[in-house]
Amino acid sequence: MSEDKVLVFGHKNPDTDTITSAIVYAELKKELGENVEAVRLGEIGAETQYALDYFNVEAPRLVSNVSEEAEKVILVDHNEFQQSADGIEKVQILEVIDHHRIANFQTEGPLFFRAEPVGCTATILHKLYKEHGKAISKEMAGLMVSAIISDSLLFKSPTCTEEDVQAAKDLAGTAGIDLDEYGLEMLKAGADLSETTVEQLLTMDAKEFSMGAHTVKVAQVNVVDAADVLDRKQDVLDAMKKETADNGYGLFALAVTDILSNDSILLTAGEQEEAVHTAFNVKLEDHEAVLEGVVSRKKQIVPPLTSALS
Amino acid sequence: MSEDKVLVFGHKNPDTDTITSAIVYAELKKELGENVEAVRLGEIGAETQYALDYFNVEAPRLVSNVSEEAEKVILVDHNEFQQSADGIEKVQILEVIDHHRIANFQTEGPLFFRAEPVGCTATILHKLYKEHGKAISKEMAGLMVSAIISDSLLFKSPTCTEEDVQAAKDLAGTAGIDLDEYGLEMLKAGADLSETTVEQLLTMDAKEFSMGAHTVKVAQVNVVDAADVLDRKQDVLDAMKKETADNGYGLFALAVTDILSNDSILLTAGEQEEAVHTAFNVKLEDHEAVLEGVVSRKKQIVPPLTSALS
Repeated sequence: MSEDKVLVFGHKNPDTDTITSAIVYAELKKELGENVEAVRLGEIGAETQYALDYFNVEAPRLVSNVSEEAEKVILVDHNEFQQSADGIEKVQILEVIDHHRIANFQTEGPLFFRAEPVGCTATILHKLYKEHGKAISKEMAGLMVSAIISDSLLFKSPTCTEEDVQAAKDLAGTAGIDLDEYGLEMLKAGADLSETTVEQLLTMDAKEFSMGAHTVKVAQVNVVDAADVLDRKQDVLDAMKKETADNGYGLFALAVTDILSNDSILLTAGEQEEAVHTAFNVKLEDHEAVLEGVVSRKKQIVPPLTSALS
Repeated sequence: MSEDKVLVFGHKNPDTDTITSAIVYAELKKELGENVEAVRLGEIGAETQYALDYFNVEAPRLVSNVSEEAEKVILVDHNEFQQSADGIEKVQILEVIDHHRIANFQTEGPLFFRAEPVGCTATILHKLYKEHGKAISKEMAGLMVSAIISDSLLFKSPTCTEEDVQAAKDLAGTAGIDLDEYGLEMLKAGADLSETTVEQLLTMDAKEFSMGAHTVKVAQVNVVDAADVLDRKQDVLDAMKKETADNGYGLFALAVTDILSNDSILLTAGEQEEAVHTAFNVKLEDHEAVLEGVVSRKKQIVPPLTSALS
């Protein structure tokens, strides 16, 4: 174990913001003279890999238990311990840079904690670079703008703020990319599901929620062609039914989000399927409904479903 | 209830940093065009009143249950809910500005959270003024430098950082005060205990800690003349013994901290008094010991006592 080295990492099941924020913040800390290393807690997705390849940056190395590797850590893009590394309770958390709610987090001593209610961690990192008066390289700008595009779905998500848009425009200039052109290519790279198994579709981004007396699972995938999923609709529904029965879900919903039209198709299973009708004022036909203009699980799917089931 | 007004406040049993930080941050937010009001959760101490009078600033009004007054709040100088206002669970926390550990704190949504491991909240507020490019008035500078003097005991506490010292020097210029002269007068105003009852001595700044299998209470008072306390030593010890028996403390220690010599006299009660010998390598004589150079409960008293009792 290197006693001095500080590990910088984002959440488990890493997305583009989590991977790039670890790389970028570690780079800034190194420029400030600190001994840090970016690491990751899970596999790199196709969208993230596209961004890393485009800007010729290597992925951080994979770490499972951080307490076996370091005594001090910096968290980016998360703070809740259940989303963090194994061993997180045994190390000292020096800093957190995040844009989520704060929950299930505590420290023994004071720390540097910078959270802002913006759409993306990269937007805060962009601000930190300016505050420290450090120039942003083309590579780091490219990774940050990729994170903003990813978290905001090219500014279409209701989680996106004016600060995110301005940061992305500024960074796109430094990175030398056309925002719409690069952004769409990157999102497409992560939205090609033609080679994905049904099991992967239902697990790649799935979260459980308590709604009223029910446990509800909401999974989400991005697509450029919904046929990648709908061609296998019966297999997907069968797998959802089985998982619903095995886990006692009141409802299991899969949102297939079209990144071009910014609509989502919802596939559903479970005894509480009618909640979809109440929540979105749409009719389910063969366990399927279209939700026009819906792209954000956090802001547009979970709240109305929670109301309908409570 | 005013639905728009956002309340800004520090912790219960308010000290100078908590009261002045609420006033100063509310002032900065108003300059930024926001509808906020500073309030307080408890009585103003003599030291804080000295600073308010000197710079001719009114104390914030007293509030007991914040959820009856507002829907949205900003916390300064604390985050732990047990130190915060009654009703804190029912309101939305928009922001936190703090320099303590994070614990027993959570929100439903993202927020602005700015914590830094410095000696005083005012040091962070000083930085926020600069980041927003706003000029600091003489009054606000005076309140901020008073908070730094108070939390750092005129830079003598080991919690004081170089950032705190630099901020204080900058602010003293704007406030038009001589740091040492004003600082000592302000500390003396809070350290005159000649009119204080024994009960007040033991409650004005007392905290409970779990140490090994024992519950330990550590109270602290600042003095310019230890005789204010020691002239009543037997009464103080009797009251400590009674409280120790009533609450089952393993140890009750009162630190009488001389703000001129920066030494503390410790008075003790309880079955675990010998821990003082182990912790500080001093001999107790008639439940009294001198701890040379000890001024910080957090950094110099609690850790060695915890080790001795664990």
